[in-house]
This record gives sequence, structure tokens and C-alpha cells, in this order.
Amino acid sequence: MRKIDVCLSPDLVHLYDLTNTAVVVVDIFRATSCMVTAFAYGAKEILPVEDIDLCKSMQEKGYLISAERNGITPEGFDFDNSPFSYQIEKVKGAKICVTTTNGTVAIRKASTAPLLMVGSFLNISKVIEKLKSWEGDVLVLCAGWKGKPNLEDTLFAGCVIDELNTHFQVADDAALMAWQNYNIASKDLQTAVKNSSHVNRLLKLGIEKDIAFCLEKDKYQVLPLWREGCLSL
Amino acid sequence: MRKIDVCLSPDLVHLYDLTNTAVVVVDIFRATSCMVTAFAYGAKEILPVEDIDLCKSMQEKGYLISAERNGITPEGFDFDNSPFSYQIEKVKGAKICVTTTNGTVAIRKASTAPLLMVGSFLNISKVIEKLKSWEGDVLVLCAGWKGKPNLEDTLFAGCVIDELNTHFQVADDAALMAWQNYNIASKDLQTAVKNSSHVNRLLKLGIEKDIAFCLEKDKYQVLPLWREGCLSL
Repeated sequence: MRKIDVCLSPDLVHLYDLTNTAVVVVDIFRATSCMVTAFAYGAKEILPVEDIDLCKSMQEKGYLISAERNGITPEGFDFDNSPFSYQIEKVKGAKICVTTTNGTVAIRKASTAPLLMVGSFLNISKVIEKLKSWEGDVLVLCAGWKGKPNLEDTLFAGCVIDELNTHFQVADDAALMAWQNYNIASKDLQTAVKNSSHVNRLLKLGIEKDIAFCLEKDKYQVLPLWREGCLSL
Repeated sequence: MRKIDVCLSPDLVHLYDLTNTAVVVVDIFRATSCMVTAFAYGAKEILPVEDIDLCKSMQEKGYLISAERNGITPEGFDFDNSPFSYQIEKVKGAKICVTTTNGTVAIRKASTAPLLMVGSFLNISKVIEKLKSWEGDVLVLCAGWKGKPNLEDTLFAGCVIDELNTHFQVADDAALMAWQNYNIASKDLQTAVKNSSHVNRLLKLGIEKDIAFCLEKDKYQVLPLWREGCLSL
């Protein structure tokens, strides 16, 4: 039987064999939720980079640019790492270069996988649909926060397992625990995350509406895939 | 308020500030359960080392020696990494050199902490008692399995938080999740761990009675502490 596993931090991804594995990278607050939103609003391509200066330099090459460090957007970038900032006309047809604290690092670290997709609650049905038709194993890679596991990405991983547990065998304890954590939280994700450290960081930044938005399921029917060094539909 | 946190893998311990932190290292199946049992049976000192040849060489220096790799004991060692193997007369007053897949690595990685103790369900009340009187923060460091988180060490961490949540603030999401996982499992730990990957590995080794033993709470009133390069009471 195919196996599904969860990697709780990008700092642990070297422990997982990605040879025949579909990887779902998730950074609920807010990188992958933003990417999904951007594609839903017509973005043509997203290029995740780890270096902030490299990101800035891509503006000259016709990219819109997006940067976040520690939850905050530096001066001179087009987007502020809120999914609402991508809900504008100029996103349509655009190429966007993105760098964030956690999410882009996770994508780069998993880029050797034969299938790599960007997941969020916003597009979870598209993720599930793709994984059901995948014949190998699955790893949900949580972006976490600076290497540490976080609740919201783990809950997304648990939700994917909950949807796929008749199709895949739970591979290991991290996946089992994520599934349990999701079962506790599933009826009311917003209440469940209100004690989490990352949500408290975000609340200090005054972005309550981003939190509610990023926890909505199935808002968008897009599935960003990694192909030839960037994300596209 | 003092904070309590959980590190789910020794591969993530570099992310935690140990400067003013009491660290509890836990490897339920079976390194720290064995160590606690050995001290309960009168061991004088335990020296954890990472290298198996170094461990063997300590026999010439008057140590009893214990080794485990992948759950199995190599030839020529005094103990087989079962807590039952330490329940013998010759343990009394002995110095024991130990190397295991996960537990000894975790101890070495946290040895810079100002207070480092060995925890297991067998001595959890002694752990709790010590932490209540500690004035700094607390980190429970789970040994896991080859860098990956495991259920039983996480459940121990959650149990420690459950006991201390009126004395310490939960620091981060890993601790919050461990606490949730423990709350699900607390009424029947044996049933809770029966689906875990590590327990399935151990069951293949035919050591069901070790599993039941290592999940017993408060069997021993000993607290092994790290002092001057080794563990003692």
C-alpha cells in the first residue's frame, strides 16, 4: 500500500527519501496560501528564491516581487505577504518572484522530488485529487517557523491524512500525531489555532483577517506544481 | 512566567536556547527507561558515549558496557537494552558505559544545559518534582528515532506539560501539540502506542513486556543528573 508521511520541519527533510514521493509543501500562514491565491487570480508563474536581494533583482527581469522576513514585508516590494494583496488585477498573467522566511526554503529543499505541489486549505481538494491519482508515496512537508514545527501546517498535514487514510498507509509517528492533532481541531480550526505561537505573532501584526482567510477550505480550484525551476499551474 | 517547550528531535535541538534551561532527555523505548532502572538497582554512574568501539573499550577501565543499534545488542556487551537486563545484582555500585541509537546522542547534544536530567515514565514524579523547583525554563528533548519524532517520547513530553501547566507557560506549538497528543492517550498509553512505528519495530523484536514496563509511571524514585561528563544520582 502507498504510504503517507509528514515532515514537521524543513530541517528534517534530509531524513526522508523523496525518490518516488509526491511532496506537498505547506506554509499556511502565509506563503503557500498567498501562492494559491495568486494563481487563482491569474498569475502565470511563481519563482521562489531564498535570497532577498536576488528576489529584488528579478524586478528588472519583468517579475513582480514579494518578500517577507519575520512576518513583515521590506520596502520596495509589490506584495506584503497577505493573500489579500494578491487579489488585484495586475496579478493576471504576471510572473512573481517570492522569498519568505519559511515557505520558499521548504520548496527549494524538496525540489528533487518527482512531483512537488503547493498546498493550503484554500486548495486542499485539488491537492487530495492529485494525490489520489499518484502511484507513489506522499510526504507533506510543513514549512514551520524557522525550523521549528508549527500547529497550522501540522493541522493541514493531518487534514490531508484524514482525507487519504483509506488510500494510503500512515507511514510514521509524525503523521500519526498530525492526524490526531487535526482530529481535535477539525470542527473549528480558528479556535484551535488561537493559542498557537505563530498566530500570536501574526495577531501582533494586526492581520486577523488573513488568519481567517487562510483557514478557509476549497476556496480555489488551482494546484501550483513545481516544473522546470518554478511554480505554475 | 517560566516557559516549557518540547524539542521533537535531537536534529532540531540547535534551534533552542539552552542557556538558562533545564533539559529532560527522554528515550522511552528504551535508553532512558534502562538508565533509570539501572540507577534504581544501584548503579553508581552511567557514561553515555556515541561510538560503539569507545563503549567497548571502557570495559578495560572497569565499566560494565551496554550497546544498542537499531534495537539490537551487538555481541560482547553486558546488557541488551532491555530494562529487565539491568535488574541484576552486579548493577549495584557499577559504572556503566552506554551507547544507543538515539538516547545517548540526545544527551550529548544537550550537555551544555545548566541542568540536564534523564526522564522516563518510570521516574516521572521525580522529574516533575525537580522541575517545579527550577527557576528557569524547561525543554523536554525527545530522542526520537534516527532524527524523526516518535510517539512515545512525545507522549512523555505531553505528560510533563500536563503536570506542569500551572507552573509553566507552554512556549511553542510543538509543546502544545505534544500536550494534545498526551491528552488523547493518557487513559491508556499501551493502546495509544500500539500503532506507532517504533512499537511495531519493537514488537518484531519480541519484546512486548519491555513496552508495558517502560510505560509504567512512578515505579522508581531516582533522578539521574548530568554532572562532570556523566550521569549520577
